[in-house]
Amino acid sequence: MSDSLPNNFNLAIASRDAPIYAKLLGQAGLPGLRIKLISQSQPDAIALQECELLLADPDLALGCLPAMPRLQWLQSTWAGNAPLLSHSKRDYQLTGIKGIFGVQMTEYALAYMLYFARDIPGYQARQQQKHWAGPTHSTLRGRHLGILGVGSIGREVASVCRALGMEIHGVSLRSRDCEAVGRYYDLSQLQEFAGSLDYLLCLLPHTKQTANLVDQTFLNWLPSHCVLINAGRGSLIDDEALCEALCAGHLKAAVLDVFREEPLPDTHPFWHTPNLLITQHTAALSRPELIAPVFIDNYRLWLSGEPMDHKLDFARGY
Amino acid sequence: MSDSLPNNFNLAIASRDAPIYAKLLGQAGLPGLRIKLISQSQPDAIALQECELLLADPDLALGCLPAMPRLQWLQSTWAGNAPLLSHSKRDYQLTGIKGIFGVQMTEYALAYMLYFARDIPGYQARQQQKHWAGPTHSTLRGRHLGILGVGSIGREVASVCRALGMEIHGVSLRSRDCEAVGRYYDLSQLQEFAGSLDYLLCLLPHTKQTANLVDQTFLNWLPSHCVLINAGRGSLIDDEALCEALCAGHLKAAVLDVFREEPLPDTHPFWHTPNLLITQHTAALSRPELIAPVFIDNYRLWLSGEPMDHKLDFARGY
Repeated sequence: MSDSLPNNFNLAIASRDAPIYAKLLGQAGLPGLRIKLISQSQPDAIALQECELLLADPDLALGCLPAMPRLQWLQSTWAGNAPLLSHSKRDYQLTGIKGIFGVQMTEYALAYMLYFARDIPGYQARQQQKHWAGPTHSTLRGRHLGILGVGSIGREVASVCRALGMEIHGVSLRSRDCEAVGRYYDLSQLQEFAGSLDYLLCLLPHTKQTANLVDQTFLNWLPSHCVLINAGRGSLIDDEALCEALCAGHLKAAVLDVFREEPLPDTHPFWHTPNLLITQHTAALSRPELIAPVFIDNYRLWLSGEPMDHKLDFARGY
Repeated sequence: MSDSLPNNFNLAIASRDAPIYAKLLGQAGLPGLRIKLISQSQPDAIALQECELLLADPDLALGCLPAMPRLQWLQSTWAGNAPLLSHSKRDYQLTGIKGIFGVQMTEYALAYMLYFARDIPGYQARQQQKHWAGPTHSTLRGRHLGILGVGSIGREVASVCRALGMEIHGVSLRSRDCEAVGRYYDLSQLQEFAGSLDYLLCLLPHTKQTANLVDQTFLNWLPSHCVLINAGRGSLIDDEALCEALCAGHLKAAVLDVFREEPLPDTHPFWHTPNLLITQHTAALSRPELIAPVFIDNYRLWLSGEPMDHKLDFARGY
């Protein structure tokens, strides 16, 4: 069937998982699609020149854009697309990924909240001393979780944590319809939001509005027993203020998955700040077997001229 | 009102939390109840002699029983009551506690399953080396959790873990009506049960049937990537076989909350067995503010001559 159709569109794939994507898209038998794999280190400008479509990890897409005058649609493989949204080239449709990161993010947030709630490090320390002692843990049930950024990922986390008996406080830049959130706050009410939290989960995208939102002032509003988790974007947090807060004991702990520069430079003080745990931008992974179906669905919508899913807005920035 | 009633019943309280129980029961204004606090170290035989009722931690209750010829009802403060159930004195009603340990046990099991699933120790080790590496974790979703003992506590754990997308396999000595359990197994099907598990949570009480159930043979049936959690009773497990399995890498890890002897003796090899984590019988605590209402409800049933809640069966052993 597809052999008899003209090759209407040329798709460039620029991703660390390009071979896997090529295989998955090939198996889907999409009509009218010719696939070109683009090298990560040396993008082939001649190949890119004739491509109308791009499936790419956002950082690799940046290197391709200047060579793509015919680009009509770019499907990103990541949740965070700030570099593309702030780029000057905007004469194409940009679509993102939603709905596949919620499960992973929920397990990430639960894992670290429970790590501190059940005092796993405290019990381990007592084991090393062969010390049989009384309980030192608490429960998540009844505790307050603040979510900075209740988007498609945040609402999944909120629903599970609410089901476990936590009280959910939310800050959302747009939608306010998550039933698990007991109370929503404006950006003008951050002091009130921060003051009651036992756990703070940051999931905001990078925008001008969110950069440095978690600064010294905000950190001072958090109770000293609060645990901060940032799995949104590194630019949200004032790094120096966070180190100071942790060193001074003004915050119980921080778990960081995202950083202003990644990989985190060897010289960065985060590596050895007390009560700071680092994961390597691995909280919610872009797995090709979950992302390929998003491209496939959107390609079918594209062919039929219908609006695609998860379209991003250059003006709004997300 | 209650002052005008005769003091119909004398209640002895033998618990580490006796003063808290006395306060909570006093606030409840129960009619016809006279309370006596019993010393933990030197139970007052004369005071005990006239008491018909006993509210007690099971280990302390054992020291009181011989001095209580008039005992009619003992309300235990713990989930596990094997020492009382196997005691020769049985001419009284024994009631236990159900429905208040599920939340704590669920958070305990989730905390340690997620600790391994999200590879928290692995990420910490890489942080110490300033090593920015790829992901090494997995999800709980889709993984198999086996629960040895799906009673009132186990079914709560099962429901939450099923909601998180785990597949639940159950072994139950009695009820088989938990909808979250995808498949139930008999004690004769333990090899099949064990063979497919990613996580095993043991919640069985101590009975003749359950002692040493997790022996060398059973441990060999578990996949080598399986994590074992025992929060039931220590007698379930063959200690030596477990140490051997962990040392040989036949099991990924074990998390133990209960032991044959508690506190765990200083000389026990568990303290320094690799990939073995110890908590100090703290997985699900008997908190007086949750247990006092159970006594209060049962006391009202007792006064009215109705059957009490959570009555234990000496013949059955639970």
